[in-house]
Amino acid sequence: MTNSVKADAPSPVRLHLDGEALLSNYKALSKASGAATTGAAVKANGYGVGAREVVSRLSKAGCRDFFVAHWSEAVAIADVVPADQISVLNGVGEADMPLALSLGARPMLNSPTQVVRWKQAGGGRCHVMIDSGINRLGIGPEQLGEDLLDGLDIDVLASHLASADEDVAQNGEQLEAFRQAAAGVSGERLSFANSAGIMLGRDYHFDLTRPGLSLYGGIARPEMTSIIKQVVFPQAQVLQIRKMPAGSPIGYNATYRCEAAKRVATVSLGYADGYLRGFSNSGTVEFQETAMPVIGRVSMDLVTLDADNAENLREGDWITIDYNLREASQISGLSPYELLTGLNSRFDRFWI
Amino acid sequence: MTNSVKADAPSPVRLHLDGEALLSNYKALSKASGAATTGAAVKANGYGVGAREVVSRLSKAGCRDFFVAHWSEAVAIADVVPADQISVLNGVGEADMPLALSLGARPMLNSPTQVVRWKQAGGGRCHVMIDSGINRLGIGPEQLGEDLLDGLDIDVLASHLASADEDVAQNGEQLEAFRQAAAGVSGERLSFANSAGIMLGRDYHFDLTRPGLSLYGGIARPEMTSIIKQVVFPQAQVLQIRKMPAGSPIGYNATYRCEAAKRVATVSLGYADGYLRGFSNSGTVEFQETAMPVIGRVSMDLVTLDADNAENLREGDWITIDYNLREASQISGLSPYELLTGLNSRFDRFWI
Repeated sequence: MTNSVKADAPSPVRLHLDGEALLSNYKALSKASGAATTGAAVKANGYGVGAREVVSRLSKAGCRDFFVAHWSEAVAIADVVPADQISVLNGVGEADMPLALSLGARPMLNSPTQVVRWKQAGGGRCHVMIDSGINRLGIGPEQLGEDLLDGLDIDVLASHLASADEDVAQNGEQLEAFRQAAAGVSGERLSFANSAGIMLGRDYHFDLTRPGLSLYGGIARPEMTSIIKQVVFPQAQVLQIRKMPAGSPIGYNATYRCEAAKRVATVSLGYADGYLRGFSNSGTVEFQETAMPVIGRVSMDLVTLDADNAENLREGDWITIDYNLREASQISGLSPYELLTGLNSRFDRFWI
Repeated sequence: MTNSVKADAPSPVRLHLDGEALLSNYKALSKASGAATTGAAVKANGYGVGAREVVSRLSKAGCRDFFVAHWSEAVAIADVVPADQISVLNGVGEADMPLALSLGARPMLNSPTQVVRWKQAGGGRCHVMIDSGINRLGIGPEQLGEDLLDGLDIDVLASHLASADEDVAQNGEQLEAFRQAAAGVSGERLSFANSAGIMLGRDYHFDLTRPGLSLYGGIARPEMTSIIKQVVFPQAQVLQIRKMPAGSPIGYNATYRCEAAKRVATVSLGYADGYLRGFSNSGTVEFQETAMPVIGRVSMDLVTLDADNAENLREGDWITIDYNLREASQISGLSPYELLTGLNSRFDRFWI
């Protein structure tokens, strides 16, 4: 029953990842962070980019604080950097404790329950998340009784902004709430700003900033447009090219019909790769600087292109998907975040 | 630098998978397929359900034809069933040939180029896809010259329906085109119908049907509502419960505001798990038969719930996401297909 496999299975989808753009973005965010040091959110496999390689590259650039969501994500990078440089944002549940105590990554304690759990286990150095108004995860200022945090050895006292991508009163309100809460807590470092928060100015920087999206090319606020570069370039291989006669419907439910005879290329890419149906009849790709529109509905593993203008295109060629996050977001209806984290394990990842 | 990890990292998200529902769906689709035998599309990791376990279970139920998209997906199940029961729908590119020849899974040849490649390599038994009008992938009837397929040892001669979920003329046109094309080709078996196509009746069944979506609980046509059962039940763990005062904004960009004081539960689930932002302020979950609405925007790794009615809910409890595919599709704006294939490797998978 077991078949002996003697050869690799090359993937027909790959991500070209621009290592210089990643470093440039990190440096730009560091500069914008002023006197604060700059960490990196690498949860969700480094926003889909590949956490291990991102951590390795940013570590060489001087980054010493890496933020993941789950303990499994901490394990995945724990041989790349010292574990005490890794913070687990979702904190520590009962089932996580054996791993948390043995691994040495630091939990971001998010609730009185987590604080008590960590204290009772003698967990050692940790971080604490104060909820200053996103009202999602963290210890509310009203929960900070006189002694809740006593006895904790707190490295980072953090909070998280809800609306840093907007110019709204909530930002200032959260800043004030964080300052007040922090005044009563003895943490070594204070951390508040995500990517967008960095651009809100010096008051928001404190000791440590924690960009995520913008490291990977996302424009979290308009001011960043000139300093943030695209990192992720998805590519896919052409499976078939065929000349279709005028009038031909294309793809599921015939959502496109060829007005004239048309050269149609079918590529190995689909929503199972994270290229969702929102790109149907609206996405574009490039081959040797020739643009090709997606025609018809995106299938699970296939996309069809209008290849009339790409005369040199042949079966087996690789096309590059237009994936400027802002434009792709407008086209697809997905957020830049979803566009990144949806790029899954089917993709081979190549750093250029 | 290397950290010794002595404990597992339990995942805070898991899929409960109903093995009886999967078998029941397979049997229902087999019955609806009449005299035809019934295969199974297991591409994209078994539509997110987990290809290895799906193949193992359907194999025990008598299924002998499994369809994947990529060669890597064939490798992933090649120790579960004999390789000659595995068909690779995207065919065989130049780079796939070493693996294709050693593995023994059968390519679905989709273009004259692929046909020539397979012939020249002496690849042996294969399948051939005729494009009868989806105009996406396959050999067009106009490309079937007198001798293109001569010398091929064809097991399955297949075609694929574009609009079987609709009652449109295209279905009959494709049927006629497939019949005409098949009349001139010597394949051992003919295969035409996907999940929806099975319900179009006996004319569409031929020798082998290839359901996908409906195996996993998708209602491909309204006639299936009474025979197809839900297979996939995503669950996530509660990280924190907190009483929020009246007026509190919840989550990113304050898209929800508590009218009165409210008990809010935050669970470890987000769009990085495949639960996309379309569920913001609209999805629902269950705990001990109490429904809880999603409030606020879905984050990368977190979702907030109105837990006012779930008095027994505690941190560490598991909630079940309402994931009836038809309803979840209407709520989220995603197709049932995307709802399944988006469930990624962060989930542990448990069969019940």
